[in-house]
Amino acid sequence: MTKGSINVSVENIFPLIKKFLYSDHEIFLRELISNGTDATLKLKHLTSIGESKAEYGNPKIEVKIDKEGKKLHIIDQGLGMSADEVEKYINQVAFSGAEEFLDKYKDSAKDSGIIGHFGLGFYSAFMVAEKVEIITKSHREEDPAAHWTCDGSPEFTLEASDKTDRGTEIILHIAEDSTEFLEENRISELLSKYNKFMPVPIKFGTKEINDPEFTPATTKDEDGKETTEPHKKITVDNIINNPNPAWTKQPADLEEDDYKSFYSELYPSQFEDPLFNIHLNVDYPFNLTGILYFPKMSNDMQMQKDKIQLYQNQVYVTDNVEGIVPEFLTMLRGVIDSPDIPLNVSRSYLQADGAVKKISSYITRKVADKLKSLFNSNREDFEAKWADIKIVIEYGMLSEEKFFEKADAFALYPTVDGAHYTYEELFNKIKANQTDKDGKLVILYASNKDAQHSYIESAKAKGYEVLLLDSPIVSHLIQKLESSKENITFARVDGDHINNLIKKDETTISKLDEDQTKTLEALLKEVIPAEKFTVQLESMDSDESPFTITQPEFMRRMKEMQATGGGGMQMFGNMPEMYNLIVNTNSVLVSDILATEVKETQERLITQSLDLARLSQGLLKGEELTNFIKRSYEMIK
Amino acid sequence: MTKGSINVSVENIFPLIKKFLYSDHEIFLRELISNGTDATLKLKHLTSIGESKAEYGNPKIEVKIDKEGKKLHIIDQGLGMSADEVEKYINQVAFSGAEEFLDKYKDSAKDSGIIGHFGLGFYSAFMVAEKVEIITKSHREEDPAAHWTCDGSPEFTLEASDKTDRGTEIILHIAEDSTEFLEENRISELLSKYNKFMPVPIKFGTKEINDPEFTPATTKDEDGKETTEPHKKITVDNIINNPNPAWTKQPADLEEDDYKSFYSELYPSQFEDPLFNIHLNVDYPFNLTGILYFPKMSNDMQMQKDKIQLYQNQVYVTDNVEGIVPEFLTMLRGVIDSPDIPLNVSRSYLQADGAVKKISSYITRKVADKLKSLFNSNREDFEAKWADIKIVIEYGMLSEEKFFEKADAFALYPTVDGAHYTYEELFNKIKANQTDKDGKLVILYASNKDAQHSYIESAKAKGYEVLLLDSPIVSHLIQKLESSKENITFARVDGDHINNLIKKDETTISKLDEDQTKTLEALLKEVIPAEKFTVQLESMDSDESPFTITQPEFMRRMKEMQATGGGGMQMFGNMPEMYNLIVNTNSVLVSDILATEVKETQERLITQSLDLARLSQGLLKGEELTNFIKRSYEMIK
Repeated sequence: MTKGSINVSVENIFPLIKKFLYSDHEIFLRELISNGTDATLKLKHLTSIGESKAEYGNPKIEVKIDKEGKKLHIIDQGLGMSADEVEKYINQVAFSGAEEFLDKYKDSAKDSGIIGHFGLGFYSAFMVAEKVEIITKSHREEDPAAHWTCDGSPEFTLEASDKTDRGTEIILHIAEDSTEFLEENRISELLSKYNKFMPVPIKFGTKEINDPEFTPATTKDEDGKETTEPHKKITVDNIINNPNPAWTKQPADLEEDDYKSFYSELYPSQFEDPLFNIHLNVDYPFNLTGILYFPKMSNDMQMQKDKIQLYQNQVYVTDNVEGIVPEFLTMLRGVIDSPDIPLNVSRSYLQADGAVKKISSYITRKVADKLKSLFNSNREDFEAKWADIKIVIEYGMLSEEKFFEKADAFALYPTVDGAHYTYEELFNKIKANQTDKDGKLVILYASNKDAQHSYIESAKAKGYEVLLLDSPIVSHLIQKLESSKENITFARVDGDHINNLIKKDETTISKLDEDQTKTLEALLKEVIPAEKFTVQLESMDSDESPFTITQPEFMRRMKEMQATGGGGMQMFGNMPEMYNLIVNTNSVLVSDILATEVKETQERLITQSLDLARLSQGLLKGEELTNFIKRSYEMIK
Repeated sequence: MTKGSINVSVENIFPLIKKFLYSDHEIFLRELISNGTDATLKLKHLTSIGESKAEYGNPKIEVKIDKEGKKLHIIDQGLGMSADEVEKYINQVAFSGAEEFLDKYKDSAKDSGIIGHFGLGFYSAFMVAEKVEIITKSHREEDPAAHWTCDGSPEFTLEASDKTDRGTEIILHIAEDSTEFLEENRISELLSKYNKFMPVPIKFGTKEINDPEFTPATTKDEDGKETTEPHKKITVDNIINNPNPAWTKQPADLEEDDYKSFYSELYPSQFEDPLFNIHLNVDYPFNLTGILYFPKMSNDMQMQKDKIQLYQNQVYVTDNVEGIVPEFLTMLRGVIDSPDIPLNVSRSYLQADGAVKKISSYITRKVADKLKSLFNSNREDFEAKWADIKIVIEYGMLSEEKFFEKADAFALYPTVDGAHYTYEELFNKIKANQTDKDGKLVILYASNKDAQHSYIESAKAKGYEVLLLDSPIVSHLIQKLESSKENITFARVDGDHINNLIKKDETTISKLDEDQTKTLEALLKEVIPAEKFTVQLESMDSDESPFTITQPEFMRRMKEMQATGGGGMQMFGNMPEMYNLIVNTNSVLVSDILATEVKETQERLITQSLDLARLSQGLLKGEELTNFIKRSYEMIK
């Protein structure tokens, strides 16, 4: 038996690292600026604990394009390296300097915000450069500056350099296939995507501003006309990042306006203010900061995803937070920053990971708490925003049991008249009037005030409350409420005649005797197509509509649930629509129909009434509608 | 100046490879089976050119779970390795064996279908295993078998083994956090996802079938009753893959049914047959095979993406073909297999890559050619399928100029009466009757037969053809056609009165004199809300509708384009809907209105007529509709 150690063949792995380290080549800039940031924050730490004699000052990182020379420079004013350190940190691929540093200064460095931990980041430079130079001078004055050059083969050269100022300059000789990274716009775009909130100021070019120390003199000529001399301009560094973004601060130090202006920083093309925000801030058992915003929501759930940005120590990672944030909250916007979220792992792994699960439930709890406190502190405002946020809350109630329980305190049920009740308030308001003869509480609702107008009116005439529930997932939510609250049922106002939706012990006596009823039934049978409508005779008040079309609740709801993705409802999707035609036997029209002996008149009365009932349900269309209109013009002439 | 060579530190890179090589850990099984497949195909090649004396036989790859021992075995009957080869191929991470092999046997091996080329695949085993063993016996009988063991540190042991049969067995000792890979269902799922069409048979367990060589005997008892003895069962290997999927065959060797059954293999839960298929097969200037299917398409374009699977040499890679397949064809289904598509590169790189661009335009051309030949060979069938495929074709016409040109030969324009014309046929059919007085050809269309029924009828009464264009992107397509064909315009039938949509030199004389016109205008002004309708008096035939509501084409179309994502149309999205009310001055109703002196009657006539016109455009809703219906019941009583 032999023993040995596995060899990594540099010749083979180096091209792999170069080309395949990251699927997105643009990542190189993020990695190099992260290295510069690390070097700066390390220096800050060492000076603060007295281990470096250097003057920390106000260091920044500069990015510079040399288009003619086809070079990109990244210059930091951090620790710098001696030749020995270059040997150690750069020539040993995958020797992670940050890890060693953290190991050495474990306790004191914990909060210094050091980013790098793979040690491979630097080599991502070779994804876009055919040659890379490092010119570096250590913060230890005695160490001479070093100049490292490598053309992408494993061979490198290392020589002395005359660099005198502390820090590291990386020079990328951009390869032919990557010249996009010599364009100012492209680099600007990358800086703004990945580095917008990194903790060390990043300079990219300069800009002119009015000299703040100069006050233009104003002179008067003989006519008394005033002339002001032009403002003196000065050139200053163009700093592209905000090193202290709102989420890194304490909630107590931020005003409402600070949150709003950070929102505009995050989404510059978004003109609408967010409705409210939730500041996340926890450091045990995991480290997480962030700010989530509720924007105005539309009913299209898919459109609004991928707006939350994930950061690690202020470095942008991704806008896909699936698995980290509970699905119903992916419709929100904002930022989450946590070094504790494992990257580069599969989504299924992420979802099974204990730490990530805790993060996800922490976020859910914080959102629920915030909603509750908003509701309690300013209910009027909360009600005004309800229509814009309800889709998130309803989706959350459906998908997260914990959230469902907490939502009882703030979930609102709006009525067609614009009132908003909590479930408990609704219950107390309607229980006396809307409990049926079997003791079941019937909650009436409409999905569309216009389309169901006449049905809503009938319900209101009885003094009933009608909710307006118009989310695409409302049928699922109703199902969930019916199964978790006791002895209640939801009924859409056009599901049946209002007397049948909430059955009381009262009965209205029919004007018709048995013979008349039979005659009426026979007449209706001749004119009403049986395959489309089930005729149902009811004795109602004489001034109620003679004909009404209804659609039974159960089948309609199952079809809706199927359409919005309810499991196991497929069978309902293909079923035909079913309608009932309710005929009010006490209406004047029915008396008229029976009174006339002329067959033709009877048929005309029934047909026109049926058409009017269909109109009311939005069922009269195409040729039938055209004919109805023609007939109606005849009648008004 | 010193020179040197960059070192890759194994201690540091090994854990990285283990944990981060692939973001999806499940990939390990694909990689190990690919290695086994390579080893088998290499042996096939060597035996075929006489360089190996081994008997090739019918080798397979076996996957075996040992749940109790927490082990997963992958066993091939390929080349095998000697101890020296293990040293060379396994211990040198990233030394790619396949590359060396291809290099050595360049010309003869070109078509042998060898997969591996990174040399890193084997190490993906450590993503799920805490210890890995290799037991291997070379096809060269003289080489003794070897047994390699490594616990995930860079240390390994290598010793002799008593394995006698040719090939390699990999044993994974599954780690605590990866026990999912000891579940039969999970492994089944992975095999079916990644290995379903790999070229060497893959065995996973056994199954019982009826012995094909056994014929059950039938005996008769004294009453003449026949008894058949039970069928003899035998246990056979459960082969989970189809090593010769349809796309690897020549089109000439396949029947229509072969394509259909391959479709069912690809989408087992899909019950509907595809409409037709396109067999891709090219080997210069790039290598590409595949079969694309047109399924029945709905109008929801987003729902249907990510159904095309990308393979490389029969190994599943991804179902995201964005950038490889032109966007409009991502709605199709099927398989593309090409070793020439670079993986692990960014989408933007992919789109700029020359080879990929050629692949994309090859696919576009093949699809266009196939559609043309289908149209030519069986037009009736093509017309019947049009509604199910038009969304793809129309989207292609909008997004790819080349496809737009080719589509002239097969793109169809259906009429409301069910006829289907090509553009040229339509042009010839309507040019005599539908050219207006300025010489412009007006193509009439409707978007909904029901909603625009009365307007369609008016157009048909003039002998005009009305197209039925109901795709969500139709306004964009119309815009495109108007700008590429000369002197034509599209007009939706409800855009104006039909006489105004196609203006001829005829004029109908108004029955009203100047005074009467003024009186009518004043009356209308009092009743018709000016902020909603622009009143337009027209002298039309007396039997045409008295009141008609129209919506001008331009504004409506711009709003539609904005809604479906037309660039630069934002300004139209927020504009209010605009409608015209056309009053037929020659109608009997208008005469009646003028004839009566009773103000109340005049107002009632106008209101009821306006309501009827609004009904016809679907504009009468809610309370207004309820009131209209109530009034109408009164009128029929």
